[in-house]
Amino acid sequence: MKTYLDCIPCFFKQALFAARAATHDENRIKEVLDKVSGLVPDIPLESPPPETARYVYGAVRDITGVSDPFRTHKDKSIERALQLYDSLKSAVTASEDPLRTAVHIAIAGNVIDFGAAQHFDLDNEMKDVLKKKPAIDDYESFRQSVETGGTVLFLGDNAGETVFDRILIETLRKNTVYAVREIPIINDATMEDAVKSGIDKVARIISSGCDAPGTILKRCSREFLEHYRTADVVISKGQGNLETLSEETRPIFFLLKVKCRIAAHHLGAEEGSLVLKDNRLQVGK
Amino acid sequence: MKTYLDCIPCFFKQALFAARAATHDENRIKEVLDKVSGLVPDIPLESPPPETARYVYGAVRDITGVSDPFRTHKDKSIERALQLYDSLKSAVTASEDPLRTAVHIAIAGNVIDFGAAQHFDLDNEMKDVLKKKPAIDDYESFRQSVETGGTVLFLGDNAGETVFDRILIETLRKNTVYAVREIPIINDATMEDAVKSGIDKVARIISSGCDAPGTILKRCSREFLEHYRTADVVISKGQGNLETLSEETRPIFFLLKVKCRIAAHHLGAEEGSLVLKDNRLQVGK
Repeated sequence: MKTYLDCIPCFFKQALFAARAATHDENRIKEVLDKVSGLVPDIPLESPPPETARYVYGAVRDITGVSDPFRTHKDKSIERALQLYDSLKSAVTASEDPLRTAVHIAIAGNVIDFGAAQHFDLDNEMKDVLKKKPAIDDYESFRQSVETGGTVLFLGDNAGETVFDRILIETLRKNTVYAVREIPIINDATMEDAVKSGIDKVARIISSGCDAPGTILKRCSREFLEHYRTADVVISKGQGNLETLSEETRPIFFLLKVKCRIAAHHLGAEEGSLVLKDNRLQVGK
Repeated sequence: MKTYLDCIPCFFKQALFAARAATHDENRIKEVLDKVSGLVPDIPLESPPPETARYVYGAVRDITGVSDPFRTHKDKSIERALQLYDSLKSAVTASEDPLRTAVHIAIAGNVIDFGAAQHFDLDNEMKDVLKKKPAIDDYESFRQSVETGGTVLFLGDNAGETVFDRILIETLRKNTVYAVREIPIINDATMEDAVKSGIDKVARIISSGCDAPGTILKRCSREFLEHYRTADVVISKGQGNLETLSEETRPIFFLLKVKCRIAAHHLGAEEGSLVLKDNRLQVGK
């Protein structure tokens, strides 16, 4: 997915939000916005937004000196998600179609985000999720793929959401590799967050090697790319991974909540809707 | 009101929206955003946002060559408002307190805006307005001032809203001067829009001399300033006029719909609420 001009105001909104999470010094925050302004003329519009987000969040890191401004938010998200774990597990167990329920839970977990959509209500979102049908719903294809496939590569997105991913991994019962970001960016899950969420008990966790809020293959590690090439099933969580992998031809299942108008247009689904998309079945605009 | 860092992403959002109204050439629109980026390091944060908006909309004008990108929108807004004129006049006539009703109508007309808040529903807004009490409601003070005062200076805001202002002017029955922007900026009313709305039948229309989407006194004409100094009552419509006159000590009645979180914080009223504020009675934060 390319970068749209609409992404530019959003980069500023995100820079401001992240800089404020990092510091209360208004001069420093203004410096961040000045730095982001300097980036605008050179934004590669042909690249996906996470390519530019690397520089935007890099500016926050460099100018404020805070490498993980959402550390506290991430810990709270994980804690809150862990509190919901038991009841969500029960819902899966009690379900007529446990896989379907686990998939819904994993998609709904994608509501946790401090990037494009900065406000969310985890509890209410979870209450609605079991009854809400995804706007794009390639579940049958997903079910067949995971039934026949032996290995799964799971591309994580946000910290906290990781706990809901764990429920899906536990339901799948496959040989799963869970990939996280190389360094903290926005509230995206790193190795530390995945371990805190208990993913290490159900999957092998690796870094993608990528420092963007997405999966930019040319920036990924050799180890990650090996898994990406060979995994029977790739499950990609969140909009950042979609933005960076939407042109890929290998089979990928995109599970996400649509966070902005641009992604909504790209997918042909409404903003805020839940998506389970098999990239072989539907072609993005 | 000073410029907050939150205004910076909003300037980009507004620049994009206005540039798109002016042209479909994505390269030109990107040029506008590049130009606005160049302004960021020098934004005078101690000045009100309309001071910077002059440069933002100036960039749209200079780069696209379109001096009035919202011309069609403005004409449609005026046309729609004129269609509502008779029924709103009847509501005033039938009201137990015609002045109160006319004030509500004038405030609700402020929903018409293509700046900070780009989406609005004029018909629904009008349906609600007669029953909705303003969040800040200095009506009694307003009523007393207009009953005793002989002359009114009315600071207009958006084209279309002008028709609702006309209803208030007709209800006041005072010697009224109606001030408009010097040149087209966003969808703010100019001389042409005021005349199309029939204001010329009920007031003397003058230009403020100011080319910003607000009333920056140091940029206003001598003629305007004479009226500003001597008018018994000043009625100021909209957020732009509030932003530029909020520190003034002369009595002003601010009538507006609160368009963003920053103005909401400043006023101590919720975003989206209606306001009738006597600046002598309540001090902004």
